[in-house]
Amino acid sequence: MSKTTSALILAGGSGKRMQSNQPKPMFELLGEPMIEWVLSSCETAGLSDICVVTGFGSEILEDFLNRREKVYPTVLQPKRMGTGHAVMEARNWLREYVRYDGDVLVLYGDCPLLGAETIQHAYKTHCQNENAVTVITAEALDPKGYGRIIKDKDKLLGIAEEHELSDNQRTLREVFSGAMWFNIRALLFALGEIEPNNAENEYYLTDTIFILGQSGYKTGVYKSHNPDIILGADDRRGLLKLNDTIRRKLIEFHLDNGVEFTCTDGVTVGRKVKLGSGVKIMQGSILSGETSVGDNTQIGVNCLIDNCKIGSNCNLNSVQAYDSTIMDNVSIGPFVRIRPGSIIRNGVKIGNFVEVKNSDIGEKTAIAHLTYVGDSDVGSGVNFGCGAVTSNYDGKNKYRTTIEDGAFIGCNTNLIAPVKVGKRGYTAAGSTITQDVPDGSLAIERVPTVIKEGYSDKKLKQ
Amino acid sequence: MSKTTSALILAGGSGKRMQSNQPKPMFELLGEPMIEWVLSSCETAGLSDICVVTGFGSEILEDFLNRREKVYPTVLQPKRMGTGHAVMEARNWLREYVRYDGDVLVLYGDCPLLGAETIQHAYKTHCQNENAVTVITAEALDPKGYGRIIKDKDKLLGIAEEHELSDNQRTLREVFSGAMWFNIRALLFALGEIEPNNAENEYYLTDTIFILGQSGYKTGVYKSHNPDIILGADDRRGLLKLNDTIRRKLIEFHLDNGVEFTCTDGVTVGRKVKLGSGVKIMQGSILSGETSVGDNTQIGVNCLIDNCKIGSNCNLNSVQAYDSTIMDNVSIGPFVRIRPGSIIRNGVKIGNFVEVKNSDIGEKTAIAHLTYVGDSDVGSGVNFGCGAVTSNYDGKNKYRTTIEDGAFIGCNTNLIAPVKVGKRGYTAAGSTITQDVPDGSLAIERVPTVIKEGYSDKKLKQ
Amino acid sequence: MSKTTSALILAGGSGKRMQSNQPKPMFELLGEPMIEWVLSSCETAGLSDICVVTGFGSEILEDFLNRREKVYPTVLQPKRMGTGHAVMEARNWLREYVRYDGDVLVLYGDCPLLGAETIQHAYKTHCQNENAVTVITAEALDPKGYGRIIKDKDKLLGIAEEHELSDNQRTLREVFSGAMWFNIRALLFALGEIEPNNAENEYYLTDTIFILGQSGYKTGVYKSHNPDIILGADDRRGLLKLNDTIRRKLIEFHLDNGVEFTCTDGVTVGRKVKLGSGVKIMQGSILSGETSVGDNTQIGVNCLIDNCKIGSNCNLNSVQAYDSTIMDNVSIGPFVRIRPGSIIRNGVKIGNFVEVKNSDIGEKTAIAHLTYVGDSDVGSGVNFGCGAVTSNYDGKNKYRTTIEDGAFIGCNTNLIAPVKVGKRGYTAAGSTITQDVPDGSLAIERVPTVIKEGYSDKKLKQ
Repeated sequence: MSKTTSALILAGGSGKRMQSNQPKPMFELLGEPMIEWVLSSCETAGLSDICVVTGFGSEILEDFLNRREKVYPTVLQPKRMGTGHAVMEARNWLREYVRYDGDVLVLYGDCPLLGAETIQHAYKTHCQNENAVTVITAEALDPKGYGRIIKDKDKLLGIAEEHELSDNQRTLREVFSGAMWFNIRALLFALGEIEPNNAENEYYLTDTIFILGQSGYKTGVYKSHNPDIILGADDRRGLLKLNDTIRRKLIEFHLDNGVEFTCTDGVTVGRKVKLGSGVKIMQGSILSGETSVGDNTQIGVNCLIDNCKIGSNCNLNSVQAYDSTIMDNVSIGPFVRIRPGSIIRNGVKIGNFVEVKNSDIGEKTAIAHLTYVGDSDVGSGVNFGCGAVTSNYDGKNKYRTTIEDGAFIGCNTNLIAPVKVGKRGYTAAGSTITQDVPDGSLAIERVPTVIKEGYSDKKLKQ
Repeated sequence: MSKTTSALILAGGSGKRMQSNQPKPMFELLGEPMIEWVLSSCETAGLSDICVVTGFGSEILEDFLNRREKVYPTVLQPKRMGTGHAVMEARNWLREYVRYDGDVLVLYGDCPLLGAETIQHAYKTHCQNENAVTVITAEALDPKGYGRIIKDKDKLLGIAEEHELSDNQRTLREVFSGAMWFNIRALLFALGEIEPNNAENEYYLTDTIFILGQSGYKTGVYKSHNPDIILGADDRRGLLKLNDTIRRKLIEFHLDNGVEFTCTDGVTVGRKVKLGSGVKIMQGSILSGETSVGDNTQIGVNCLIDNCKIGSNCNLNSVQAYDSTIMDNVSIGPFVRIRPGSIIRNGVKIGNFVEVKNSDIGEKTAIAHLTYVGDSDVGSGVNFGCGAVTSNYDGKNKYRTTIEDGAFIGCNTNLIAPVKVGKRGYTAAGSTITQDVPDGSLAIERVPTVIKEGYSDKKLKQ
Repeated sequence: MSKTTSALILAGGSGKRMQSNQPKPMFELLGEPMIEWVLSSCETAGLSDICVVTGFGSEILEDFLNRREKVYPTVLQPKRMGTGHAVMEARNWLREYVRYDGDVLVLYGDCPLLGAETIQHAYKTHCQNENAVTVITAEALDPKGYGRIIKDKDKLLGIAEEHELSDNQRTLREVFSGAMWFNIRALLFALGEIEPNNAENEYYLTDTIFILGQSGYKTGVYKSHNPDIILGADDRRGLLKLNDTIRRKLIEFHLDNGVEFTCTDGVTVGRKVKLGSGVKIMQGSILSGETSVGDNTQIGVNCLIDNCKIGSNCNLNSVQAYDSTIMDNVSIGPFVRIRPGSIIRNGVKIGNFVEVKNSDIGEKTAIAHLTYVGDSDVGSGVNFGCGAVTSNYDGKNKYRTTIEDGAFIGCNTNLIAPVKVGKRGYTAAGSTITQDVPDGSLAIERVPTVIKEGYSDKKLKQ
């Protein structure tokens, strides 16, 4: 892509038909707002300068945009006066680009499936044909409700809305995706010419096509082979359907790449997730964010994995894991939670009812059951007894625990951080450890057990 | 509704085609017996006097009816001699109403989707037209197997079963829902006239329509716009299909009211459940009973919520909660069980592997992990360490634990009830607390830890 | 079946279209490799001698076959030279059977739904008609891609592949299942006659039909009424579809036998699972292996049950159980793991966050919460307090714990195995028990609690 390409995203749409105060581009597709899909497509396509026109619920949208890693300028369209008017509000932002005589992609923030490839291919057509405007279209299975592409032979005449269609035009299946490439100079010229000559008194951006054509500019079409690029959602039923569509398509993509699914009920694989060959995903599992999974790993029933790097030959069963790294040959579950900032190294085994938080767990360490390991640095070959707890919080501050290679932490041991158990250190069951345990030593806090003979028989008789 | 309206529910149907000894009205739709749906529709429609005619598996049905909050009289039809005969068995119950010259709705106990609105609209028609009988009907997509409505122009002639249909009649799509409004005097008269003139030697209730028409009474039809009112289930495949149908319809109802569902696999929302705007329900979640959920609360994956009042802006993830109240801004999960009688107040945070039972948890209290809080009154701002346990049972009795505002319960602490930890009281990790802890004090049960240097190295060498 | 029947399974198919190095017969249907389904059908049909021809990924297949209870001989087809060539490689194995003049079923290892009944019925036809070869066929809904059965009146002429079909033949819907019964003498004769006269230079087993017919042998067809017997999978999308098909069919089988399913999302019932009458299976539950479930037991949400014998009137909710026995009237869950080798006796109650491993739990014992019972023999009427742990591992060896009838194990008790708690023995909360507790006695390890008044107030002020 040339340096002078940019994108203007129209994101002022209302969520009223969703019964919500949220702007429509903020509604989620597979766990991410639709506008994030659009921004991500633009970024992947190499469009470096992006401006977002907000309107309905602008503060919610601004808030989301400001929390992104890459922050873009926004322009507020205070009154809803049509898509042409929305672009006019961004005229100052556009003007900065004119000296370069660049191009801008104008597209909707709630039309999430227009991918980077389509954007790039359309731009290629736009440049090769030296168009002033290139409309991105697709063939719709059911064109009803979409703007139809009106041509005279190969010449683009305009885009007609449902109510404007003649009977002949009603059968046209090529529809407008909502996205158009413009030469910026031409766009600025055409913006000055459109008028609100319609029932709603609105400025339609699509009028620029006719205006440019009349004024001797070249207008053209890039038709995508992918019918999904036109999909959006008008209400919550539509949004559910859109989620189902993309959910199924992503699963099919992974099936074709050698991933095994035997029952896809409840399964969601996010758009950025990378799955190795021979990976098996079982029912009820959700993988999201920047997650990657190595070859032959099984993501068992009901896993919820967000932003994790998972290695090969692992087995996860009923695990919730967030923002962590799990290396190779690791077995976890069932009923385990891995909280952010954790590293689970090769060959680790984690059993039921275990929580690991912000900790580094060394190779081949075993945490079999009912254990909390938080804010800890754990060596290799360590064994945690059942009910062991790292007590990392004293009511005011949090501290770290260090457990070195080969240590053995007895059942129901409390490790009161900051504390260190040395190499091959051993803590006796039920002890509360407040001081460091030297290498190869046993720490025991225990008093003789008293046996009260007959006590419970007597008590039960009472 | 007038005070003199009542309902007679025919609930003698057999579950044999279900391969079961249960009566058919006891089979469940979204977790409730079909007869409960019917009773509930009658009650919502304001029919105060209800009588249930039992037959097959009557003791199972009686047992269920007697455990309801509102208990109604039943009549046993000992032999299966037709629907007319079933109503005859209830003649004594009907006669009590005659002096008021009231109306009675006769309907089936295994036809669960006839709603209160339909009952009321049909009654309005029944009264306005001064009918002796008003048959409730609907247009079936596939009328096969249903009784067809036979009319001469607008005059109702009768109801024809599948095998009685002429070829012309077979195309009729208006079918009998199983429910009819009767004037009680007219019904009692007609019951005396029906005869078992058919192959099965049974008394058909539908014969009353012809009898009443012949005797100069007015007979009419109320046709519902809702085709679901006729749905029932003959076998377990049919029952599964009925569950799927109503499950999907209820989800669509909530979608239209601004609830977000992104994947509905495994999701079931019961018919009495109330969901606020912006609520998000994720896959595998079941909401049942008298559950309500406040605005913008997320019911995360695999929740099972029964009879709970849940506030706004909460986040529940893999939580099972029963008969409890959860207030606003509460975060719970994953892997948590809230047992009956619990109140979780504003801003509470409950983490993984926690059980709360019959306890009141004060505002902003944190129970992060592996903890059991039972039979306890907990103040606000309390912090539970990992593995803390309220020991509420001594093998004979259960006792309560009191923990006051700002207390800090150390890891693996045992609180032996009855016991109280005062305001800002602090218990040291691993302590067993059998006496009250005064305000602002520390309770500690600990002995010096002994370090046996080299002990574990020696032991491992053996 | 006669003693002289045997089966030759062609299992050399490649998994390349699955994007995998596994041989195709190793891909799983409801958790078992497809070849296991085929072997199991042959075994159920009484075919005692079986030989498997391997090829692609033979070592993976060999490894699987050698781990089966019953191990069969294999023959390697080193080069892929057609199905006829595959059978030729097994000639020596076949020759051992010739003196008996027996019959052999030749079938594919990746065509899993050809059942024992079909094999037996086809063999009956084969014998009655004194055929040299009997081709097993079925009517396909969509025959495209399958070999079509070409007959002249009732006489079988051969099997035509898609590209060999005339326009008339293309409409034929009777297709080849991949399985054929052969008289062994006739097969050995025909193998000597087939030639690789085709584009691929391969030996086609189906050519034997024409050869045998030409040579005066009788050739015939057994047509199954079950269209599923022809189903296989060419790629991972096809395998998912096959899983879905058989999943739905098995659920329908159980529905017809009186099992209740109200939502089948995520539900998988394995082919060997036996379910009693009135059993209820809820969403997300997976039953696999040699599992049986007694009458009226509810398998609640998200259970994963493998190789377990479960009794009547039990209730399991979010339980994972493996290789164990659960008797009658047992209640388990939610969030429980029963590991191999466990026996849970009548009336036991197991609550949340409990792990039982390789233990025998006596009648009416209660393990309510956050407990690990491993390598233990537990009597009847025992009560485990919350957080109790059997410490069965000292870092080197595992030992057993014995808890006798009526014992009461206090909260957060550590039982350091080997150790015994006698009848009605009682351990105080927080104790670590290293010696046996006599019958009716209390064991307590505790020191006086020290109260430091004002300590925590002071500390918080710092």
